[in-house]
Amino acid sequence: MSKNEQYISALLGEGEKHFLSNISIDTVILGYEENSLKVLLLRVTEGGWMLPGGYVFKNESLDEAASRILEERIALRDIFLKQFHVFGEPDRSFSSEIAALFGKLGAPWTQNLWINQRFISVGYYALVDIARAAPRPNIFSKSCSWHPVEALPALLLDHKEIIEKALHGFQNDLQNYPLGFHLLPSMFTMPELHGLFETVYRKSLDRSRFQKKMLSYGVFERLEKKKGVAHRSPFLYRHRE
Amino acid sequence: MSKNEQYISALLGEGEKHFLSNISIDTVILGYEENSLKVLLLRVTEGGWMLPGGYVFKNESLDEAASRILEERIALRDIFLKQFHVFGEPDRSFSSEIAALFGKLGAPWTQNLWINQRFISVGYYALVDIARAAPRPNIFSKSCSWHPVEALPALLLDHKEIIEKALHGFQNDLQNYPLGFHLLPSMFTMPELHGLFETVYRKSLDRSRFQKKMLSYGVFERLEKKKGVAHRSPFLYRHRE
Repeated sequence: MSKNEQYISALLGEGEKHFLSNISIDTVILGYEENSLKVLLLRVTEGGWMLPGGYVFKNESLDEAASRILEERIALRDIFLKQFHVFGEPDRSFSSEIAALFGKLGAPWTQNLWINQRFISVGYYALVDIARAAPRPNIFSKSCSWHPVEALPALLLDHKEIIEKALHGFQNDLQNYPLGFHLLPSMFTMPELHGLFETVYRKSLDRSRFQKKMLSYGVFERLEKKKGVAHRSPFLYRHRE
Repeated sequence: MSKNEQYISALLGEGEKHFLSNISIDTVILGYEENSLKVLLLRVTEGGWMLPGGYVFKNESLDEAASRILEERIALRDIFLKQFHVFGEPDRSFSSEIAALFGKLGAPWTQNLWINQRFISVGYYALVDIARAAPRPNIFSKSCSWHPVEALPALLLDHKEIIEKALHGFQNDLQNYPLGFHLLPSMFTMPELHGLFETVYRKSLDRSRFQKKMLSYGVFERLEKKKGVAHRSPFLYRHRE
């Protein structure tokens, strides 16, 4: 059995033997495409979407669980992933969606199942190069696709609030370190990085002050000029390891 | 029974009936005194200290639990309290300290007790006016006292790391909003606020630029001049609700 098959089997069986109780993880996986910041969502019902997420094995750290969930969803490892907030309202449970899923799969369902309990969810956000990600749905969902954060479909539970908090956390973190490069291919130009920052902050940023600030971090290495650009040839940069 | 008596009775009895599993809260309660940033600690053993913390009732939100824990420890309500990080390593358990406590109290102890499980802990930091707080120990501890963050005693488990993360989170938050005033009495002077910020950031800050920046937030209201100050009389300020 693959790690994911083990996971699903544990989930549909006696979850309490394998997973921590009352704790789940939700991942806000962000990508950037066509000047738009996008988030990866799973379609669970005809009109209801949710964030990729999952549970924590008893012998696994929270960070390991988040990496596993991310890899299972987009087939990428070693992705920038950061905890940003915990969601702890008393009414957090997916029991009606789970009842429907178990019914569909023919798995025995009772209200007492481990999976119906209240879950406190730890939110992680991830920054990925959208061109490298290979999204795939999980057993709860029919499809898995990218959505502009400006135009989200109807989301289950508190998942809209989770996305808003993630974006706020990302904007904040971006003030301390130019993390945004994780959303671009490994080589990029300053105009591309500038466009990305303008999208994230939803405002225009002075181009030359932006470039000066980015270079002042001392973490971007200048490479050759970009080829195939007509009138102006901007330099390519990459982040130093 | 008071809320705290109920809490202790549940803790020493069948915890799994009352509390969420695998989830605890740790609070980093910060105060400011004699130009020093201090943290409230509980002395559990002769040389071992820990942060105030506790568990989450099944019908309670995380934030409500953190407020309850805080009020129980320092007898103050409506205190600035903010979640900053979750600690999720697989080896987080206090089972040896708990075995000693149960032994002392004559409560039956087995390894299978709810309280011996792995706990993922949600860290909250609180900012209090140290003069208003009335610290008291809990059943796990002999005393409860303030310690300069620059000179911490030996801490159990990962509590030193929790304090460091809290200080980092507070410094970061302070860049977005002048939260530091929560550590001062309700009326304070700009030199007092300036001294506090210098302590938190561990560096000197230009006095006039500091004052200009603080006033630019538009959240501090100027009151009368401070009485009883010899040669110079600085204005008092307070934070607008």
